[in-house]
Amino acid sequence: MAKQISDLKLGILGGGQLGRMMIQEAINYNLTTLVLDPDTDAPCKHLANYFQCGSITDFDTVYNFGKKADIITIEIEKVNIEALEQLEKEGKQVFPQSRVIRLIQDKGVQKQFFKENNIPTAPFQLVNTKEDMLNSRFDFPYILKQRKDGYDGKGVMRINEVADIDQAFDAPCLIEELVDFEKEIAIIVARNPKGDMKTFPMVEMEFNAEANLVEFLISPSTYPEELQNRAEVIAKNIASSLNITGLLAVEMFVTKNGDLLVNELAPRPHNSGHQTIEGNRVSQFAQHLRAIFNLPLGDTSTINHAVMINLLGEKNHNGVAKYQGLEKIMAIEGVYVHLYGKKYTKPFRKMGHITVVDQNRDGAIQKANYIKNTLKVIS
Amino acid sequence: MAKQISDLKLGILGGGQLGRMMIQEAINYNLTTLVLDPDTDAPCKHLANYFQCGSITDFDTVYNFGKKADIITIEIEKVNIEALEQLEKEGKQVFPQSRVIRLIQDKGVQKQFFKENNIPTAPFQLVNTKEDMLNSRFDFPYILKQRKDGYDGKGVMRINEVADIDQAFDAPCLIEELVDFEKEIAIIVARNPKGDMKTFPMVEMEFNAEANLVEFLISPSTYPEELQNRAEVIAKNIASSLNITGLLAVEMFVTKNGDLLVNELAPRPHNSGHQTIEGNRVSQFAQHLRAIFNLPLGDTSTINHAVMINLLGEKNHNGVAKYQGLEKIMAIEGVYVHLYGKKYTKPFRKMGHITVVDQNRDGAIQKANYIKNTLKVIS
Repeated sequence: MAKQISDLKLGILGGGQLGRMMIQEAINYNLTTLVLDPDTDAPCKHLANYFQCGSITDFDTVYNFGKKADIITIEIEKVNIEALEQLEKEGKQVFPQSRVIRLIQDKGVQKQFFKENNIPTAPFQLVNTKEDMLNSRFDFPYILKQRKDGYDGKGVMRINEVADIDQAFDAPCLIEELVDFEKEIAIIVARNPKGDMKTFPMVEMEFNAEANLVEFLISPSTYPEELQNRAEVIAKNIASSLNITGLLAVEMFVTKNGDLLVNELAPRPHNSGHQTIEGNRVSQFAQHLRAIFNLPLGDTSTINHAVMINLLGEKNHNGVAKYQGLEKIMAIEGVYVHLYGKKYTKPFRKMGHITVVDQNRDGAIQKANYIKNTLKVIS
Repeated sequence: MAKQISDLKLGILGGGQLGRMMIQEAINYNLTTLVLDPDTDAPCKHLANYFQCGSITDFDTVYNFGKKADIITIEIEKVNIEALEQLEKEGKQVFPQSRVIRLIQDKGVQKQFFKENNIPTAPFQLVNTKEDMLNSRFDFPYILKQRKDGYDGKGVMRINEVADIDQAFDAPCLIEELVDFEKEIAIIVARNPKGDMKTFPMVEMEFNAEANLVEFLISPSTYPEELQNRAEVIAKNIASSLNITGLLAVEMFVTKNGDLLVNELAPRPHNSGHQTIEGNRVSQFAQHLRAIFNLPLGDTSTINHAVMINLLGEKNHNGVAKYQGLEKIMAIEGVYVHLYGKKYTKPFRKMGHITVVDQNRDGAIQKANYIKNTLKVIS
């Protein structure tokens, strides 16, 4: 018998909540998990079979860590690619592949990839200096994105007028036409090395404008089937063009004309898939493991309407986290709590999420609003 | 704000699969988990925040371990009761309570409790010696059960004739009238300190005669509502008579006349509730945590038909476990794998379980039969 999942060591770069939920699922397969994270108190620390505190961007650290694993995956894109390339050369399986991470790490390269592969996306221009911005063909207002290292709303700003350019990021960026969108949606697609692909049903995202973070996520979407099918085709096209192994989260805008424009990619489990744990037959974490271990992909269909609420640290609270209102929300049927094991809260820090399922979309949204107003992470 | 679940340390006596699945759920609440188990390779070893290898039946070991926790629970009844009593005296919360464990540890006392509380159960007699057996008022054949330390089919034998008495257990036992039953069923009830109670829908058990272990478990039962209601009332009566905090699994016989007779109790998560992880709104493990932390009890209703298959080590296989056919069964929709992290297999050892869910009972049973014939734990 060939080596099977329960014999293999899974190395995960990054030990945050995504790694934590991946390990929760990996337990079902006796997987041996190894985690590398720079934070001595990372959410995965006590759950990994082997936890190493160290830099995920340093060549030697990543390379030496990877040598101990059979399969290496990520829970964050900002990792040392050269080390992953070297590990691949030496026969380690790295999923998603290093070249996919490299492409996605750089939002400029991502946009060029969309253009080359006829993936619909907002018009853009790469800029290196404030000079480039002043000479841009784009009219104000437009969106400025740092090409690298942006996450959770960081590295994105709106430029309304010439004066704003002074505050612009001091790094390679891209300018993007401001999309007059109706909604942001996401589709997660899984692809295994055999080339099998399955998408999770499309979800709708509602943003917290102040934090620029997803606040609610509603599954499944109520957009017409025709639009959902188009979104699925786009997601699958990207996954097969990338030839990716693993999960790919595809965030898109639905414009007021009903067009779809791809916003960003994430080659890993993603915030827009947390509701799959209780809302779908198979969770994104289970599907990611199936994909990277070349197993048959699971049934992604929804069981229920689900709303996911990101549990963010309250403004003006810094310190040891307290979860006010937890007992109240647990009295509601269909409420599932996921705390991420972070000891300290700070404003807008992702401390956990709550999923509420209901047979009725409006019922789920109503409960989610109550939860949002009742459950607070304070210090 | 009072101390809340995420601030508390949960001590678990026993580090097997039940503790493992409890920890998988405890992760969602940032619970700090402490586990005591005599096996250096116990399934919980790498998942507990703190794992101590030691005896769960030794006073000092259990007492000193318990001192480190805020709430102490069990995943097996064979623990040192005196240490738990002492911990309770010193203000620790022990759930289930030591007196409940003491009562249930001894099947003789359990039977007397049934009698005193008008809980229907098969006629029985306590016996201390082979002499007592020879002088019993019971006709052959009957069932002989060791009063203490029986589990997983061990400590139970059928006495067909006088000659069998020679092989009888050399320990305090009880004789039980052989029940001509149609089926074994189980109901799990949860009770929190406030006295709130909720039952999981009744399940049917199918035994492997050779191993005397549950092989299939089918949820929900198709017995008439009237019978299911009777079973629920019995389960709730026992839980409130015991004044238990936590889960109580109640195994019953359905006789050919449609009567219900209580067979055995387990004051903890139980093999007959594993299908709740995917088959019900809230799992038995989540419900146990809600009960012992005095939180509102969750919705126990079934989402789907579910069949749970115990994954037992194949006969004639001893050694490092291999899971033959795993990929084949993972290709079936609605199949969920739970391996228990046990390195070595031996005949009939519980190595994991598989839950298959389906919108159709027969569909689920058909898949379960295929899984039973396809997936083998070999060495």
